Amino acid sequence: MTRLPVPTLPAPPVGVVGLGQLGGSLAAALVAAGREVTGWDVDPAARDAAAARGVRIGRDLGGVVVLAVPLPAMAGALEGLGVDPAATVTDLGSVKTPVLAELGPALGGRYVGGHPMCGTERSGHAATDPGLFTGARWALCLEPGTELPRWLRVAEVALDAGAEVVPATAAEHDDAVAAVSHVPHLLAAALAAAAGEAGPLALALAAGSFRDGTRVVASDPAFVTGMVQGNAGPTTAALSRVLGQLARPWPELVAAGHAVRAAAPAGRRPVRVPLDRTALLALGRAGGAVTGRLAAFVEGHLPGPG
Amino acid sequence: MTRLPVPTLPAPPVGVVGLGQLGGSLAAALVAAGREVTGWDVDPAARDAAAARGVRIGRDLGGVVVLAVPLPAMAGALEGLGVDPAATVTDLGSVKTPVLAELGPALGGRYVGGHPMCGTERSGHAATDPGLFTGARWALCLEPGTELPRWLRVAEVALDAGAEVVPATAAEHDDAVAAVSHVPHLLAAALAAAAGEAGPLALALAAGSFRDGTRVVASDPAFVTGMVQGNAGPTTAALSRVLGQLARPWPELVAAGHAVRAAAPAGRRPVRVPLDRTALLALGRAGGAVTGRLAAFVEGHLPGPG
Repeated sequence: MTRLPVPTLPAPPVGVVGLGQLGGSLAAALVAAGREVTGWDVDPAARDAAAARGVRIGRDLGGVVVLAVPLPAMAGALEGLGVDPAATVTDLGSVKTPVLAELGPALGGRYVGGHPMCGTERSGHAATDPGLFTGARWALCLEPGTELPRWLRVAEVALDAGAEVVPATAAEHDDAVAAVSHVPHLLAAALAAAAGEAGPLALALAAGSFRDGTRVVASDPAFVTGMVQGNAGPTTAALSRVLGQLARPWPELVAAGHAVRAAAPAGRRPVRVPLDRTALLALGRAGGAVTGRLAAFVEGHLPGPG
Repeated sequence: MTRLPVPTLPAPPVGVVGLGQLGGSLAAALVAAGREVTGWDVDPAARDAAAARGVRIGRDLGGVVVLAVPLPAMAGALEGLGVDPAATVTDLGSVKTPVLAELGPALGGRYVGGHPMCGTERSGHAATDPGLFTGARWALCLEPGTELPRWLRVAEVALDAGAEVVPATAAEHDDAVAAVSHVPHLLAAALAAAAGEAGPLALALAAGSFRDGTRVVASDPAFVTGMVQGNAGPTTAALSRVLGQLARPWPELVAAGHAVRAAAPAGRRPVRVPLDRTALLALGRAGGAVTGRLAAFVEGHLPGPG
């Protein structure tokens, strides 16, 4: 990964709403990266934990405002807070089309949906880890109405946290995470439940393949249920693809699964991509990610909220 | 785990046929545990590697003879070797009913089927690891015709290698491993293949749940195909149970999977089990394992081949 020169315009402040595992980790990572971060959480203990990591605590937020709250709380997350009307607003929710539908009408081009592909089975501010985003992929949505300078400001936040930015539309994102996150949670649950039917002897003989295949069932069931139901259409479609694969003759199925793993390209090839929506989305569709940016591309041209 | 006093009768020698990852690791572990081990492999490089770990190389085998060869080679594994007609014969194959059907008629009560639940995606003598069996579960079959003193001699071999012995019938074993090993391999293949259909963006966003759920697709496809086809009936039944789970409403499915994980008992309770088939099988069915044995139970009573 090549981190390229930072832009010459000053980075805007960051406001983080919700200081649980994701928001608290992000705020701490950005403080460590030298960003000015203000955070807020309804829980005083979460505020205290963030303050101890150098996060300024307050309700007045501007620059890039990150909504790090559960999906059901997203619509009301800004209530009672003083948010700069010019601020760019992003979120960390695990589905993007529903959040876009909820926040888009009010925020318009100021809203940039995001989803960092990290987090653990743990949750809450006690699970805060400033290294949580290091090397993680962070999907960042580019809709037809997205203002590109705002998208770049959010991308910088993700890059400063140590992540790599994958450009995608909200719909593309939701289809992709259905295949690689939501359906895996359902398969893990089905595998564990079926092994439970098989009985204690089966569970006693469970070794690597079962432990790997069921690790995520340790996640909070309410969280997982909310996640798959919040992305019901794409998850149903992705599950159908899996069931279709399971109906193939086993030699074909096993070979097809192995081939996907074996075809994964070794290493990574640096590329320079023009800063336009079409080119960025093509990068994401090709399995690429943004790892930095050239100052020249934005020098003097960022009209963002910073 | 409480390792109890060893029996007062001398442990019989061990012969290991096939010195690849499993056989080579077992031979090395037993040498380290002070057992007298003779090994054989058709590959001179495998013989040399075993010899370097203190394994005597030869074709004359007695005591407990372990067939550590692939399933298709099992029936002919003893051809060309000089095996004591009183020897107890066991194997490490991943299915037990077909091997019992193959070896049982000729060997009768002298055959004790076994299956250590370990091994990695690697194979061959270069993947030898004397610690491979440490803490692993090792299923050991108790059929109506199994001679219990011979079963104990094989159990001692597994215990000496660092494993814990799970008593089961061959049919029970095959049903159990279908649920916790063979079906997980099929689900991992289906998940990987379906994500491949979803495309590079999906694979680029793949994080923990996908990596965990597809790790085993790195295994050799021919090995995996042989494994599931060699246990086709139980694997089909176990897969049907998984498909039945996947047809449930998602909140129910997620809760059921989580409950199996959450219900796993913390810790372990030492028990003493009489040395009879019914009691040992009950231990296995309850999810327990044999971790050692009292000398008194066998003192002077082992008519085995040692």
